Amino acid sequence: MNKTTEQILRVVSGFTGKFEGAFNIREDGKCAGRQSSKNIKIESKEDGPGLVIHIKPNTKDEKVYIPACVTHGAVDDLVYNDFYVGENADVTIVAGCGVHTDDGHDARHNGIHRFFLEENAHVLYEEKHIATGKGGGLKRIDPVTDVNLKKGAVLEMDTIQLEGVDSSIRKTSGVLEEGAKLLVRERIMTDGEEKARTDFDVVLKGENSKVDLISRSVAKGNSYQEFNSKINGETKCKGHSECDAILVDNGSVSASPSLIASDIDAELIHEAAIGKIAGEQILKLQSLGLTKEEAEQKIISGFLK
Amino acid sequence: MNKTTEQILRVVSGFTGKFEGAFNIREDGKCAGRQSSKNIKIESKEDGPGLVIHIKPNTKDEKVYIPACVTHGAVDDLVYNDFYVGENADVTIVAGCGVHTDDGHDARHNGIHRFFLEENAHVLYEEKHIATGKGGGLKRIDPVTDVNLKKGAVLEMDTIQLEGVDSSIRKTSGVLEEGAKLLVRERIMTDGEEKARTDFDVVLKGENSKVDLISRSVAKGNSYQEFNSKINGETKCKGHSECDAILVDNGSVSASPSLIASDIDAELIHEAAIGKIAGEQILKLQSLGLTKEEAEQKIISGFLK
Repeated sequence: MNKTTEQILRVVSGFTGKFEGAFNIREDGKCAGRQSSKNIKIESKEDGPGLVIHIKPNTKDEKVYIPACVTHGAVDDLVYNDFYVGENADVTIVAGCGVHTDDGHDARHNGIHRFFLEENAHVLYEEKHIATGKGGGLKRIDPVTDVNLKKGAVLEMDTIQLEGVDSSIRKTSGVLEEGAKLLVRERIMTDGEEKARTDFDVVLKGENSKVDLISRSVAKGNSYQEFNSKINGETKCKGHSECDAILVDNGSVSASPSLIASDIDAELIHEAAIGKIAGEQILKLQSLGLTKEEAEQKIISGFLK
Repeated sequence: MNKTTEQILRVVSGFTGKFEGAFNIREDGKCAGRQSSKNIKIESKEDGPGLVIHIKPNTKDEKVYIPACVTHGAVDDLVYNDFYVGENADVTIVAGCGVHTDDGHDARHNGIHRFFLEENAHVLYEEKHIATGKGGGLKRIDPVTDVNLKKGAVLEMDTIQLEGVDSSIRKTSGVLEEGAKLLVRERIMTDGEEKARTDFDVVLKGENSKVDLISRSVAKGNSYQEFNSKINGETKCKGHSECDAILVDNGSVSASPSLIASDIDAELIHEAAIGKIAGEQILKLQSLGLTKEEAEQKIISGFLK
């Protein structure tokens, strides 16, 4: 892999010169390294770009890394990755993504990830996004995540967009069967002229299924963020979404969460709050010796933690 | 006026055989009685069906009644009422509406109300809706309210849909200037195959303007309710919306509130909760001697109060 990929991997995937366990490194649309493990098999998709990842039933405490990097302009990388996770498996999937361009041309990564979790499988899915490089080329990351959870399966999705991404459209959809759980934490920071949109659509189909969506965003500069969510409760189920946004400078945010309850035993709750950092919070930190900018930075870091 | 109108007026307008102050009674698209007062002038619109109501500056503690009734089928009543409220006036406007049909034909009232409040005017706007009568004729009430609030003006809108309305689409929009306040309380009860939709769109344009929207709904039988709101904060302002729904039987509810903050000093908050009545609440009232149905009824009445 090239230097840029290596730098990005250190930030988005906790890369330390090597990966332990199964991995596939995607660089500018090509495979720059792959390793399967005894329980986790990574293969190329037969009918298009991307991977098919099979995780054996009862696989415990293993990790699989599938970072993707775009390291120069004029790349529009589209990839389809399918994850089949066997019964009772308990694994972590690390899917960092970085896009770099400094040659004036646009660079984009569009990863379409489908998850099929069998009964009682548990996955922690970590997704860190960053874009680097100067020049007029737009850096775009458009992740699509489609989640299918069988009885008792749990997917925890931890997604963070760090900085530099000019435009992102993040689509997450899911169908949950009996007792399944989907927990999503997303944190998105935008600055300058950046735009970020989140579309979230989950169907609570099985009894006692549960979704918890927590979105935190900071919009600085002239950036704009849009949050759209839809939670459909079709049976006895619980749905909660929470969307908090901090505005800085001329940042603006739109939040449109929908709850649709079509069963008397569906319990759906939503909260949203948009505003700037409270003046007293800044004053308090200033009284401890921080400058106004340092105080603001500290509060934002805490908020996105 | 006919018997049906009188019965409806007693429910929706607190009619006791007469009205004190200014009033206009609309019955099946015609005027069934009108009276202006010294400070409140009610006139027919020149360019279409409806009224122009002028309330003099500094008018205090007066009421104006403008109920509208449809008392039989095959009536589709459309009316435009414009309210011009002078500076520092402080009045109550009672706009009850009832629709009755038992002849198998549809009956509809569609009232389009525009409010123009001058500086520091204060209006309490009460709107009660009911539909009565048997047979296959659909009863529809579709109110449109458009609110224009000058500096420091306050409109309190208290709206309630009691029962029997097969279909209602309620559209409320507003533009608020400096220091203006719009407070909306809506309570909607649907049953059977009824459908009710609320669309709310307010722009907080002036500094220190404020909107507070509280919507409570109960969906029984196979009824369906939809709540859509949009609060646009374009300056230093405060917006709050709250949408709580109780499901009974096979009732279903969809809530889609949007917050759009395009200024760092806009503070926008939303909460929504949809669910059935908590089992322990019913048990508690049952332990006091109520039947399950009585307990449920009591909780719903309290919720919609």
